[in-house]
Amino acid sequence: MKGLGFDFNNLFSFNVGKENGITERQLDSIAPLALKGFRHLLKISKDVRNRRRLGLEWMALPYQGKDTLLEIKRLGQDIAANFSEVIFLGIGGSYLGLKAAQDALGYPYYNEFERVRNGRPRIYFEGNNLDPNTLSVLLSQLDCRSTCVVVISKSGKTLETIATFSVVDDWLKKGLGPSYGRHIVVITDPEVGILRQRLKSLAQGDPLSFRSLPLLQGVGGRFSEFNMGLLHLAILGVDIEEVIAGARQMAQRCLSRNFFKNPALMYAAIMDFLYRKKNKRISIFMPFSETLKSTADWYVQLVAESLGKKYSRKIKTEKDDLEVWLPDTGRVLNVGITPIAARGTNDLHSIHQNNVEGENNKVVTFVRVEG
Amino acid sequence: MKGLGFDFNNLFSFNVGKENGITERQLDSIAPLALKGFRHLLKISKDVRNRRRLGLEWMALPYQGKDTLLEIKRLGQDIAANFSEVIFLGIGGSYLGLKAAQDALGYPYYNEFERVRNGRPRIYFEGNNLDPNTLSVLLSQLDCRSTCVVVISKSGKTLETIATFSVVDDWLKKGLGPSYGRHIVVITDPEVGILRQRLKSLAQGDPLSFRSLPLLQGVGGRFSEFNMGLLHLAILGVDIEEVIAGARQMAQRCLSRNFFKNPALMYAAIMDFLYRKKNKRISIFMPFSETLKSTADWYVQLVAESLGKKYSRKIKTEKDDLEVWLPDTGRVLNVGITPIAARGTNDLHSIHQNNVEGENNKVVTFVRVEG
Repeated sequence: MKGLGFDFNNLFSFNVGKENGITERQLDSIAPLALKGFRHLLKISKDVRNRRRLGLEWMALPYQGKDTLLEIKRLGQDIAANFSEVIFLGIGGSYLGLKAAQDALGYPYYNEFERVRNGRPRIYFEGNNLDPNTLSVLLSQLDCRSTCVVVISKSGKTLETIATFSVVDDWLKKGLGPSYGRHIVVITDPEVGILRQRLKSLAQGDPLSFRSLPLLQGVGGRFSEFNMGLLHLAILGVDIEEVIAGARQMAQRCLSRNFFKNPALMYAAIMDFLYRKKNKRISIFMPFSETLKSTADWYVQLVAESLGKKYSRKIKTEKDDLEVWLPDTGRVLNVGITPIAARGTNDLHSIHQNNVEGENNKVVTFVRVEG
Repeated sequence: MKGLGFDFNNLFSFNVGKENGITERQLDSIAPLALKGFRHLLKISKDVRNRRRLGLEWMALPYQGKDTLLEIKRLGQDIAANFSEVIFLGIGGSYLGLKAAQDALGYPYYNEFERVRNGRPRIYFEGNNLDPNTLSVLLSQLDCRSTCVVVISKSGKTLETIATFSVVDDWLKKGLGPSYGRHIVVITDPEVGILRQRLKSLAQGDPLSFRSLPLLQGVGGRFSEFNMGLLHLAILGVDIEEVIAGARQMAQRCLSRNFFKNPALMYAAIMDFLYRKKNKRISIFMPFSETLKSTADWYVQLVAESLGKKYSRKIKTEKDDLEVWLPDTGRVLNVGITPIAARGTNDLHSIHQNNVEGENNKVVTFVRVEG
């Protein structure tokens, strides 16, 4: 891949008309405000205490140390060598990020064909629904002796994941007896929560039982792909050091203080302008690639959870010079662009007519992979 | 299943407030207009010539004759007995309807496990994208001797399907020689189009070569599940007579001239009211069942293609007493509610925050399966 290009020509008024696009003058006028917010973010995020408290620790993930990556890689290799099936239990970011990465990094029909898999384990995603239907079919067909279960919940309280885990846990215990803990890997908060407590209480002196990885403090679920998601990629045989190097490269571009050279900042500022001033209530993210459909699903979560807000936010600086961000319950806003995942060319045969002929209240972001 | 219930209590103003809901008085006032349109539809759809010309022939699909169903069933049984993989090539309705039906009728992990499949063929959906990635992987792994290809295109002009078919066609020809036509089933217009022409030219006197089923005149792609979709279900071993009996039962309810006993008419009228009068620009269809997610994807197509319109429509009655519906290019409307597919409980962890806290411009239809 050649890196990421960002072509916003069709968001300009000279291409789509004044009623729907942004003018060059308007772009120049929003840049200073966007940069002001951005510089503030850069400043406060230098302090790890701020990053943790404000949920910004994901900004540090591209800079993880080699030792951390090596530990994850080894655990992944070990799981891949010893199991022929791995069930991941997780929901939200603990599911969408994994699915997006697996599909994007290119394994169509991965579970179906041994040769596509290159001998690595089949991967199943469960625990992302309270519908018991798929899980019960899956457990009835798998052999617990060759199955590893990775349970992911930061808080240890995620209902779907924990409920599903208790079923899978029983299934392993019944089938395997005392050694069942060797089939379980837990990814959770390093300190608190029911999963962490359980790990602590299972001090069996068996280092292969209930192995675990920490979910870093200050990394929200939807931003955690480059944290816990790396174990999944290591099991698939993806070079996670290369993945992190790519994330680092992209992070550098998106940390630029030059507005016109920072694709993330420009994209955010223009989308925000079109939302507020041009009535674009809907953002459609449409990759023209089968393998990026689940990236679009992940995008939907990122936007909906990050921008859908009832209240305005107030920022306070505490005595220790750290910030807190609080909802200002006196100012009800009910804001947030509504994100939609789509996939070309398929969806040209489904939603396209409404996009083109229906209400002019949408921005479509097309994504194309260059060879 | 107990049939379909329709609970619209939370669309009423006494539950969600006057700003967002409909009042009983408003409901009473929209009923006559909805019924007027509906009675007109009933009247004109009695004439098969109107149904064909206006694309309303789907209304007749629940009343297909036993002979038609038997022929489809036999072809399906024959394919299931002779092949271990079936690739369906189709896009839009020729893909979304099939996927929805397969998932809804309950085969989680169907392709993965022989026992789940009950010995029937693995099913693959291709030809629904111009991304060549998945198809090339699939063909590299399958054995053409055990593979059947069903190509579905009403017009024979659908770019993705025809392009993909030419690749698969070559693959079969090279692998199988002259008998390759026995591995191909064509579903297309009974009279016209490139696929039909090709069928006619392949008069080899071999009744097992290039077998075909007709796509009925006046059945649009998105409404064709109970037409060509039945072959797919027959291959899966689903009792298609029972499926059609269910469709007939539901059709009877939705043909009721009593507004308050007709769930389809009420749903349509209320949604239209909320769209026009209460600023609900977005319709989220959210089944609480893993197996109905692809029904939601199909819903998105049905709504986007049926309601997303640039122009108003004018109705003319011709000399032969038949109607034509034409876009009134003098009246630009740009209308259409924007549909979104969602799935509970998963998406409570992704889009839910935006639904609840973000803009109040959405109607969410929850779907629950009762045991």
